[in-house]
Amino acid sequence: MLFRRMAVIGIGQIGASFALACKNAGEVETVVGVARSEETHRIAIRVGAADECTTSAAEGVRNADIVYLAVPVRTMRQVMTDIRPHLAPGTLVTDAGSTKTHICEWAAELLGPDVAFIGGHPMAGTERHGPQSADPTLFRERTYLLCTAASPASLVDAFSELLVAIGAVPIEVEPHRHDEILAYSSHLAHIAAGAFTLALERSGIEDIQPFSAGGLRDTSRIAAADVEMWRHIFRDNADNVLPAARQLRKAVDEFISAIESEDWEQLERLLTSARDYRRSLFPFQ
Amino acid sequence: MLFRRMAVIGIGQIGASFALACKNAGEVETVVGVARSEETHRIAIRVGAADECTTSAAEGVRNADIVYLAVPVRTMRQVMTDIRPHLAPGTLVTDAGSTKTHICEWAAELLGPDVAFIGGHPMAGTERHGPQSADPTLFRERTYLLCTAASPASLVDAFSELLVAIGAVPIEVEPHRHDEILAYSSHLAHIAAGAFTLALERSGIEDIQPFSAGGLRDTSRIAAADVEMWRHIFRDNADNVLPAARQLRKAVDEFISAIESEDWEQLERLLTSARDYRRSLFPFQ
Repeated sequence: MLFRRMAVIGIGQIGASFALACKNAGEVETVVGVARSEETHRIAIRVGAADECTTSAAEGVRNADIVYLAVPVRTMRQVMTDIRPHLAPGTLVTDAGSTKTHICEWAAELLGPDVAFIGGHPMAGTERHGPQSADPTLFRERTYLLCTAASPASLVDAFSELLVAIGAVPIEVEPHRHDEILAYSSHLAHIAAGAFTLALERSGIEDIQPFSAGGLRDTSRIAAADVEMWRHIFRDNADNVLPAARQLRKAVDEFISAIESEDWEQLERLLTSARDYRRSLFPFQ
Repeated sequence: MLFRRMAVIGIGQIGASFALACKNAGEVETVVGVARSEETHRIAIRVGAADECTTSAAEGVRNADIVYLAVPVRTMRQVMTDIRPHLAPGTLVTDAGSTKTHICEWAAELLGPDVAFIGGHPMAGTERHGPQSADPTLFRERTYLLCTAASPASLVDAFSELLVAIGAVPIEVEPHRHDEILAYSSHLAHIAAGAFTLALERSGIEDIQPFSAGGLRDTSRIAAADVEMWRHIFRDNADNVLPAARQLRKAVDEFISAIESEDWEQLERLLTSARDYRRSLFPFQ
């Protein structure tokens, strides 16, 4: 067993799935869940993600040897401030935030030299939320990005071992690079899905569902995700998201221009380029 | 058995799936597949979608009592011209094109009064293509849109019965309205996915896959679809696609403006509106 007592602060879909996966793998003995609502406590305990729950992060981390932060990105700073006085030296603190630059800076500034921090970001999660959507297989065969520049090797090894035990694939990445890449691979997807969904809504078409197939369903899917989480991500990573969003606008403009000017060869070039790139990312089996 | 001999002109994913489904349901005895390539003939026969194949549409429709047109939208006109002299009176001709206004007009103009035409559009299909991706369950629990204003009731009944036999849900829609709605529910999804995928490609990020989860996969999925089919759709339905695409551009602009001006309340309104609309379309189980 790698860790004895894990505090999960923010026991939503990711936190509860991680806790459940670690317990099922036999690598964590006890999980204490921290959440504001007692309804969330009841669900987290019912699904087996937590053994006990509390509303207080300070209380939750007491005697923990691993602390898993799964709150919205821009709440991390306050949580680190709140838990700092209650962490034992040598405790591993890690997070599951969707951005990494600021979170790693806050950890260096606030957690101090005798607490180990590993920035983390699992490439997993769905548009669902809350511990009721916990899934211990959520991390299987998924990349788990790690920022470990400031972390002691022994704890990096232990945490990587924990990730492998739950089926994840740890990959090291530098925080700034993480945020540049994720602006495209994840945050831009959310703008594309959100803008598409808003356009659908504003079309005023009633009962559009019977007129749709997998295209509408998949292209709009992540627009259903948690608003608070995404507001934090866009605010925290605005510097990287803006150039990515302008690239999206430019590409939409090119589709519009090609159709407006009836330049069907240009339209074919756009479609072909997108098709070839998508197929290179996900080759047909 | 509802039909004896079905000619499928353009035996790709949709045509082959439809043929296979009808044969499996025991409602069609023999299928003749029409395709340009002999490789396609071999695959269509191997997967059981066709009993025989030919490169000639004129030859394929001979003695058929049902003709299923599954070629790119703007090829339909030429195919109708080619097959017209070879159709027996009373033959049912139907299509699976993604637009309906022009196709129904061409049918009225070209097929003449003694051949029955039903415009059709199954809300099914994936980003894969060719008879190798045929799936007899593709239409199950999927809407199958029908334009039957000019069709004799007895053949509409027979064709609807065939659709029900393969698990589909027939819904009647007026051709103009079909094209207005599909511009949003399907064609705009393709622009959103295509523009997102082009933006990813142009980011120059190498090996982006490990940094992605379901968001990138699903939001980009349909960009992998057949280029020729989509070029035809955009060209044929340009008048409806353009206002939809401008709505998408407007929504992308609103995301950019909110982030640029750090108007986090406005960003939250956009995210909330998209989330609520998506959840209304696909309520959580």
